[in-house]
Amino acid sequence: MPNAPTPLNGAESLVTTLAASGVPLCFANPGTSEMHFVAALDRIPGVRCVLGLFEGVVTGAADGYYRMAGQPAATLLHLGPGLGNGLANLHNARKARSGIVNIVGDHATDHVRHESPLKSEGEAIARSVSHWVRSSASAADVGADGAAAVQATRDGAEGRIATLLLPADTAWGAGGQAAMARAPQAPAVHLGAVPAAARLLRQLGPRAVLLLGTGGSRSLAAQQHAAAIAAHTGCRLLAEFYNARMPGGRGTPGIERLPYAVDATVAKLAGAEALVLAGSTEPIGFFAYPGKPSQLKPAGAMLLQLAEPQHDVPAALAALAAELGAPPVAAPQRPVPGAEAATWPNGPLTADSVAAVVAAVLPEQAVVVDEAVSNGRGFGAAMRNAAPHDWLQTMGGAIGFGLPGGVGAALGAPGRPVLVLEGDGSAMYTVQALWTMARESLPVVVLVFANRAYRILQGELQGVGAQISGQKAEAMLSLGNPSLDWVALARGHGVPGVRVDHTDALARALRDGFASGGPMLIEALL
Amino acid sequence: MPNAPTPLNGAESLVTTLAASGVPLCFANPGTSEMHFVAALDRIPGVRCVLGLFEGVVTGAADGYYRMAGQPAATLLHLGPGLGNGLANLHNARKARSGIVNIVGDHATDHVRHESPLKSEGEAIARSVSHWVRSSASAADVGADGAAAVQATRDGAEGRIATLLLPADTAWGAGGQAAMARAPQAPAVHLGAVPAAARLLRQLGPRAVLLLGTGGSRSLAAQQHAAAIAAHTGCRLLAEFYNARMPGGRGTPGIERLPYAVDATVAKLAGAEALVLAGSTEPIGFFAYPGKPSQLKPAGAMLLQLAEPQHDVPAALAALAAELGAPPVAAPQRPVPGAEAATWPNGPLTADSVAAVVAAVLPEQAVVVDEAVSNGRGFGAAMRNAAPHDWLQTMGGAIGFGLPGGVGAALGAPGRPVLVLEGDGSAMYTVQALWTMARESLPVVVLVFANRAYRILQGELQGVGAQISGQKAEAMLSLGNPSLDWVALARGHGVPGVRVDHTDALARALRDGFASGGPMLIEALL
Repeated sequence: MPNAPTPLNGAESLVTTLAASGVPLCFANPGTSEMHFVAALDRIPGVRCVLGLFEGVVTGAADGYYRMAGQPAATLLHLGPGLGNGLANLHNARKARSGIVNIVGDHATDHVRHESPLKSEGEAIARSVSHWVRSSASAADVGADGAAAVQATRDGAEGRIATLLLPADTAWGAGGQAAMARAPQAPAVHLGAVPAAARLLRQLGPRAVLLLGTGGSRSLAAQQHAAAIAAHTGCRLLAEFYNARMPGGRGTPGIERLPYAVDATVAKLAGAEALVLAGSTEPIGFFAYPGKPSQLKPAGAMLLQLAEPQHDVPAALAALAAELGAPPVAAPQRPVPGAEAATWPNGPLTADSVAAVVAAVLPEQAVVVDEAVSNGRGFGAAMRNAAPHDWLQTMGGAIGFGLPGGVGAALGAPGRPVLVLEGDGSAMYTVQALWTMARESLPVVVLVFANRAYRILQGELQGVGAQISGQKAEAMLSLGNPSLDWVALARGHGVPGVRVDHTDALARALRDGFASGGPMLIEALL
Repeated sequence: MPNAPTPLNGAESLVTTLAASGVPLCFANPGTSEMHFVAALDRIPGVRCVLGLFEGVVTGAADGYYRMAGQPAATLLHLGPGLGNGLANLHNARKARSGIVNIVGDHATDHVRHESPLKSEGEAIARSVSHWVRSSASAADVGADGAAAVQATRDGAEGRIATLLLPADTAWGAGGQAAMARAPQAPAVHLGAVPAAARLLRQLGPRAVLLLGTGGSRSLAAQQHAAAIAAHTGCRLLAEFYNARMPGGRGTPGIERLPYAVDATVAKLAGAEALVLAGSTEPIGFFAYPGKPSQLKPAGAMLLQLAEPQHDVPAALAALAAELGAPPVAAPQRPVPGAEAATWPNGPLTADSVAAVVAAVLPEQAVVVDEAVSNGRGFGAAMRNAAPHDWLQTMGGAIGFGLPGGVGAALGAPGRPVLVLEGDGSAMYTVQALWTMARESLPVVVLVFANRAYRILQGELQGVGAQISGQKAEAMLSLGNPSLDWVALARGHGVPGVRVDHTDALARALRDGFASGGPMLIEALL
């Protein structure tokens, strides 16, 4: 346990506990009720503090951090409204199975019975996205509560959301007792379904689908076992549409993801008589649409859960490969796009030409955060030829993860370049993250697809069968009038920016951005 | 009821119902599950739609709109995470007693049992800030549910928050039945405490305080009755620190507000033997501080509730003035600062010099939205000499109301100029509101106090008695490194901006901004 001043107040016991429990980072947007925690961060070594100008930046960064570092960060939030501002990205983090310890300041125990402006329903709001919620009762409890919160993020192979409410007097009160969370336990290995899965895949071959979820897709070894199983049995191999972190590029199996759209997913799964779920869940439509199914597998197809998402999915895939006697397969040989003079035609920017350029110039071991929404769907094929990388997606469908996720990924994977692919609509939800990138000099290149519309909604308006007759609906889905000036927005936050409208300029800008070692924003006019 | 296509689907019945029930405006940030509502807004006249790029803009604008228009707007939000993003400003609106009808799209009834990315706890999140929550069960119910929601915003003299969750299939389903909310009822008049209040004020004179809350301070007539009562009895007259809307300037009584800080409030109330509460509540500290009281009145002072906040406070004050036989008093004669060549010394910008300039150049009947936080506290005295205006404050302590509030105030008071006073820290929470100002060509001048710090927290860190030893705490409260470039941020959102650092330039910029008739941002370097 790090050296700490004694005696401790409650806030100091909490910082000491976090440091001792393997939580080295706190993303913070504090207010008055958190001032003693701020002072404790100042006085006690071991927990680095990164400031966000909005709580959605703080919580999204913690999600991105967990995905790369594999350990939880803390957040520091200001009462119920501060937690509310961070809620959407906590929703996303929960769906990503990321571990986060939220520290939410609250009014002092004796103050909360009075009607004051910030009196709010912190616990109720916390419960809507947290696996674990507690409000400390006294300064003496805060250390143990903090250790329990860290522990709660680690129940299972995947992370969980723990929220500790810290009444101000429990932070400033004397008698703090530091504690320490137990080390993470190895995830549970369940192999009971392995023999049945082996029989099914042997029997059905291409009429079976092996579907990887986040627990499988995030492990390159698991991907390789899955590829071996597919090669050996002839089954189809797919990953879910959304994955928290997926290694990809040259030297990886390049596993195809399910499409977003209902019709395309139904077509992709057509003819399957069984789905073997490796850390995945049954394919369900992102939304419901009139006259379209919610469940996307063929009606008669059976489901076999090889491994639950919270279990050790790589171990289950390894055991399945062994049961089948499936030998390892070499990664497909693919062209190296960067090796040639130019692998893209110089010309205007389209979803496809941008993907080709990105695939060609992406540095080795980059982390790509994908919140490109309508423009991001074409990247899958192009990126199979790119340098090896990790691919992170917004997991809960609440846009606004991308820029904060880039902040967290850069801090969770020091030394690795980060590329954030952003729609212009989605980037605006947590645009304040640009400032944290500048403040921390993070190597994050942000590529904004400036289509000046909620393009995805223009498609969805058709998809749900809504009939429109006038211009009001069109205006509600347009981001023109005025157009956002992304270069100015970047500069306003202290980040250099550049606007490009053809492929060569995009390639130059990306290379410049990665070479700069700091943040840079590229506005791509589509 | 407006003409509407028949037969109606659920979404169309809801838009028809809103239009018929006196809800002419919808602030929207829609997603897929709201597309039928978007289509209905497009097809059915009577509800204007204003787009926000972030949900906190949408809900804050609805609060500002209610305060000026006196009628609720609707919001359109996307499932639990969208509601979460709007939660802080709904918290503020609840504390402001503003009426808002939230329409929150949800997954279709049959889809919600499946695990999909956006499956979320919409109802639980809604309950934390809403007086009324309902989820429509079928398309046939949606119209009646919408009318009930509008009705729920009107229970009492002050507004309330109603949240209607709209599963997608109840929006697209056939069989919609439009309905209409009842007209607002007059607030309840309770005069039972009038005789006791009269006796107390007569008896104690300057040892009594008449304290106005929002229900009293927002009515100029109520202010005038209160001033007559104070002049007649010699009692002290104060308003709460925070007021949802307070007419001020020349020709008004210029009622002093309680200070923010605990010590200053205790000093201001010293010697009071009774507080007569006119739509106000007992003075409570904004936060608790070690060794300082939560209840700020003198220990032995008695409390008499003349009128509850939800009752007809102006009627109670009128009755009290009549009971006392207090004759009307003329508003104090005050100098007209704009009449002289210059009423401020040309020089650097300080909280005081900015207040003097604003007071001098403010146009007649301006609406001022005050979220200047640490720099806003000095405005009270200076503004007594300004042109008549309304003064709106962030009511729930969750910063991020100011810019959206300016949007809503401009739409709720057409033809009146709006001035938003913003701290640089607070402006960043909902900076996306600038874009809506540009899109709707709203006459809003935004004055950002660029002190490049969470200045209020630097004071609070001292206030809570936290001891700091190093630079980490200082860095957590600084917004420098990098400095935000507010002119660039404005331009990025389509709003012209200018940076000023002395009083003459500020006066010119303010006059230019008001003359432009559209939005403009002024970065004031302090």
